[in-house]
Amino acid sequence: MNQVEPTQHKWLHDHISPDMMQLHSIRKVLFSGQTPFQAVDILELGSLGLCLVLDGKIQSSERDEFIYHESLVHPVMLAHPDPRRILVIGGGEGATLREVLAHRTVERVTMVDIDEEVVNICHRFLPSFHQGSFDDARVELCFADAREFLCRGDDKFDVIIVDLADPVEGGPACLLYTREFYRLVRNSLADGGIAVVQSEPAGWLHGQNFAAINNTLKVVFPLVSPYQVHIPSFVDLWGFTSVSLNIDPAVLSPGEINRRISDRLTKQTRSYDGVSHCAMFSLPKHLREEMAKIKAVISDSDPVFIYRDLPGS
Amino acid sequence: MNQVEPTQHKWLHDHISPDMMQLHSIRKVLFSGQTPFQAVDILELGSLGLCLVLDGKIQSSERDEFIYHESLVHPVMLAHPDPRRILVIGGGEGATLREVLAHRTVERVTMVDIDEEVVNICHRFLPSFHQGSFDDARVELCFADAREFLCRGDDKFDVIIVDLADPVEGGPACLLYTREFYRLVRNSLADGGIAVVQSEPAGWLHGQNFAAINNTLKVVFPLVSPYQVHIPSFVDLWGFTSVSLNIDPAVLSPGEINRRISDRLTKQTRSYDGVSHCAMFSLPKHLREEMAKIKAVISDSDPVFIYRDLPGS
Amino acid sequence: MNQVEPTQHKWLHDHISPDMMQLHSIRKVLFSGQTPFQAVDILELGSLGLCLVLDGKIQSSERDEFIYHESLVHPVMLAHPDPRRILVIGGGEGATLREVLAHRTVERVTMVDIDEEVVNICHRFLPSFHQGSFDDARVELCFADAREFLCRGDDKFDVIIVDLADPVEGGPACLLYTREFYRLVRNSLADGGIAVVQSEPAGWLHGQNFAAINNTLKVVFPLVSPYQVHIPSFVDLWGFTSVSLNIDPAVLSPGEINRRISDRLTKQTRSYDGVSHCAMFSLPKHLREEMAKIKAVISDSDPVFIYRDLPGS
Amino acid sequence: MNQVEPTQHKWLHDHISPDMMQLHSIRKVLFSGQTPFQAVDILELGSLGLCLVLDGKIQSSERDEFIYHESLVHPVMLAHPDPRRILVIGGGEGATLREVLAHRTVERVTMVDIDEEVVNICHRFLPSFHQGSFDDARVELCFADAREFLCRGDDKFDVIIVDLADPVEGGPACLLYTREFYRLVRNSLADGGIAVVQSEPAGWLHGQNFAAINNTLKVVFPLVSPYQVHIPSFVDLWGFTSVSLNIDPAVLSPGEINRRISDRLTKQTRSYDGVSHCAMFSLPKHLREEMAKIKAVISDSDPVFIYRDLPGS
Repeated sequence: MNQVEPTQHKWLHDHISPDMMQLHSIRKVLFSGQTPFQAVDILELGSLGLCLVLDGKIQSSERDEFIYHESLVHPVMLAHPDPRRILVIGGGEGATLREVLAHRTVERVTMVDIDEEVVNICHRFLPSFHQGSFDDARVELCFADAREFLCRGDDKFDVIIVDLADPVEGGPACLLYTREFYRLVRNSLADGGIAVVQSEPAGWLHGQNFAAINNTLKVVFPLVSPYQVHIPSFVDLWGFTSVSLNIDPAVLSPGEINRRISDRLTKQTRSYDGVSHCAMFSLPKHLREEMAKIKAVISDSDPVFIYRDLPGS
Repeated sequence: MNQVEPTQHKWLHDHISPDMMQLHSIRKVLFSGQTPFQAVDILELGSLGLCLVLDGKIQSSERDEFIYHESLVHPVMLAHPDPRRILVIGGGEGATLREVLAHRTVERVTMVDIDEEVVNICHRFLPSFHQGSFDDARVELCFADAREFLCRGDDKFDVIIVDLADPVEGGPACLLYTREFYRLVRNSLADGGIAVVQSEPAGWLHGQNFAAINNTLKVVFPLVSPYQVHIPSFVDLWGFTSVSLNIDPAVLSPGEINRRISDRLTKQTRSYDGVSHCAMFSLPKHLREEMAKIKAVISDSDPVFIYRDLPGS
Repeated sequence: MNQVEPTQHKWLHDHISPDMMQLHSIRKVLFSGQTPFQAVDILELGSLGLCLVLDGKIQSSERDEFIYHESLVHPVMLAHPDPRRILVIGGGEGATLREVLAHRTVERVTMVDIDEEVVNICHRFLPSFHQGSFDDARVELCFADAREFLCRGDDKFDVIIVDLADPVEGGPACLLYTREFYRLVRNSLADGGIAVVQSEPAGWLHGQNFAAINNTLKVVFPLVSPYQVHIPSFVDLWGFTSVSLNIDPAVLSPGEINRRISDRLTKQTRSYDGVSHCAMFSLPKHLREEMAKIKAVISDSDPVFIYRDLPGS
Repeated sequence: MNQVEPTQHKWLHDHISPDMMQLHSIRKVLFSGQTPFQAVDILELGSLGLCLVLDGKIQSSERDEFIYHESLVHPVMLAHPDPRRILVIGGGEGATLREVLAHRTVERVTMVDIDEEVVNICHRFLPSFHQGSFDDARVELCFADAREFLCRGDDKFDVIIVDLADPVEGGPACLLYTREFYRLVRNSLADGGIAVVQSEPAGWLHGQNFAAINNTLKVVFPLVSPYQVHIPSFVDLWGFTSVSLNIDPAVLSPGEINRRISDRLTKQTRSYDGVSHCAMFSLPKHLREEMAKIKAVISDSDPVFIYRDLPGS
């Protein structure tokens, strides 16, 4: 028996805002369940292929996850002169690990995720995402709340990669976008360390959280460089922020990026190179101006949330 | 790990017409595949529970299949004085069998379905529908095209129940709503036999096929009695037609129906009784008048189809 | 320039429940606005023609409003031996008036609606619904809260027709489905009077409110006769309840109904006649049994609401 | 009476592909009709404000049209040393005119659009888009098929801006993306002239047409520079292509762009400046590689089309 394909009758409804929805045809439901922390679906979508969907929101897709994960990992990894000890916060699909492990210098990667079940589901259903990274000898998995992990402060890291799910109200990540959390990140950086934060939509229509996250990071770090890239499955431009006490990837030239890629990576990149790097750090004028107007700083007592549709009763 | 439940993010889109769609939230996909004849989904819907979906159209649902199957089976079975040999054409879920087998008089039921895989899937995933009927000693399953089966004409039946899927263009049932097919049905009735035909939507907006099926049956049978009942999962009133050379269930009184139910059925009905029977055969005035205006007769060279959305290319 | 027609790109989303939506293509938006009481749209839908939509819910449609309005008005009007003074509560489209005015015996009709703007909009945009009824000399319009109007108790009526919008939470009708309100209705009936109440969906899936309304009416009236009819634009069977101290339309035979129609109506009916009447009062067995299980009574302190989707924030 | 606002019950369904739809809530329908060439809607959407929608596809929106129109017009206008005579093909909203007229050097702008009714509708309903440009003394409007206009070849232009609607099958623009058409554009360029072509989606998932348009332009022009920018209302990155015999805007530095903006424009830009310019011409690596693989060239006998949902029958 073959897979259904010509009729599009099952759809994922992704509520981007009260006024906008993105609908994707569902080819196959590989898994659907509820962990202690969130609803999890592994779907094969007609447009995007295999996807991880948490609480009804697409987290990453087979067709374009490489754009997201390369953009998240390589700018800060290449900006650091010699990244050996890496911390990944979140990143349940294992694709962030995969990109980190492609750097020759890496000696140890600690990955902290609150939801062991999500990691197990991704391990089982998304092999093209992690490509065996969970089993790499350099990787140490730790299932814990990221805040508690950082509070213990046992280790220092050359690079910290904050790859969290959206701050859904009541969800596991909503207090991991605050000033208090970012202070913990700073305290866990080794001398000369650098971090990157997944920073939510960076587009014209929904860029408030991106601006607020940047403002919040500026309270904690002296060097803060926002960048963005278009991820089709997220509908919008997506924001990232590099933060450090003394390193700024934004100043590196295309040629220098290309040299470091060929020196330090054990594989070819698909989306990221010197030209892409420079485009990413060049925010459009209207976004720069809009961000300058937003003054909000996120704190534990004043968090931000992403829009999420809640059915009536 | 528990089932997902509070977020409605996966939906079945049922295209009723180019101008109307019914959307149902999907709780769980139990099965999804393609047989040689049609696309098959077994879904758990938020509103309707477990459902059989063929080519994107809901065929029957856990919450209301009893209305459909009791309305299909009991009027003609009770109108016949002593139904022993029964033929079921279609009816892959096994629920039509279930209702037939509840009649004490039944000695043998032959079920002819073209799609063995659908029957196997229903056997496995829909036990509350068939309730073991496929394993009843009185049942003989035959996987064949109904037309070829009837052409062989090996047997005669007291009651024939035509429980087919919608006439989807290019689908397996589209030539089983024609004058030529109904003649084969008549030829397979034993003396004093009666048949019933699932007759498509009978509502005000989409009743043309119901009228055409009735016209076509009138070409072949002297006694033709249309009736209808509301099936929530079909959105609309649903039509059935009783046909015979000499029996008309429409004339039976509520009291007589109730007596026959208690005499001849080995179980309680849920939807059907004397009051329901009489309401079913009382079509509303506008439907009677509308049907009287439609003169179409369906033939192999001029078949009818149900609306079905086809994606562009 | 002609009307758009071949592309279906604008849709009305009618949220029937958290797990079910009905979508209708929009051909034309004739009016869209907000009164002090509710959101009002006059839409031309591809499936249903011109429609009145209040707070996002279809109230009545050009294609099938005759089923609703004939079913609401004629059973109680014909059951009363000589209805002269009529009260209509709600009924903004004017189509209830139209059916009432077709009875020769009628001398005066008082219509009480809270929302003058809705009535004006219907007057202007829905002439095929009211057919000039607002301008009939026998009609008196009164824009007031129905409860306050009945409290004044200035008049007694032979027939009272309660034709209210759904009990949307916070909407104008939510306290007009309670025991307290129905007592006011009883007090305004003349000797030998009869009333009918639009009673919300009566189908298998969403019949709780229908049962609760019937229970509540039984607290106030000795004779309570529920009936239902299929209205395509409401997706479901729709419930009505006849209430009185001494008249029960359910006992009238088809022949008697047909005689009274021809004696007392000045026009032909389209949906309602003797056969339709009897079918309407024959609720299916499962609905009778389900209603018997529900014990809720609606009061001002414990009202019921219809489901309505509220966008997140 | 106020506008409806808190309920989202009317939606625009934009079918991006058979597997993806974008839904926008509709606040208000200002106009809806059919010209001899296409279906036209002027809608106020909850997310995007006032929009022009042709054949069910959003053409431009109040919230982000400035990104599109500045990106379309300024790179080639500023790359040309002294643009005086300008041709705009398409551009019915008048916003392309608006950006062109902001250049001090402009002496005459000829705008050729096939659909006079669309231009009149935009003139009336979208004043914030054209800002009076249609009435500027330098503007000459010509309602004609662009191909016939260019065939006459009466004039030569310093800059030609091809701002056409999507190539909908059977629509007015489908033969204006071909090799044959681009040859006509080249023949109408004055010495040292430059043109820009709106080049359809440039994202990872739907970039085939962008690649094919670029290939086709390379057959006709020696200098072809693709660029892209994110337009929220188009869901995706959007492609443009600058073509010329001897000018390439891609080589200009951010500083030079900023100098020319302040020297030659009579107003502030909102989205476009030196930084934005350089990012636009830096396509991501995966798009560069994907485009290199596509060899298709578009000709009158082998045109391309955008996906469009067509309802079944």
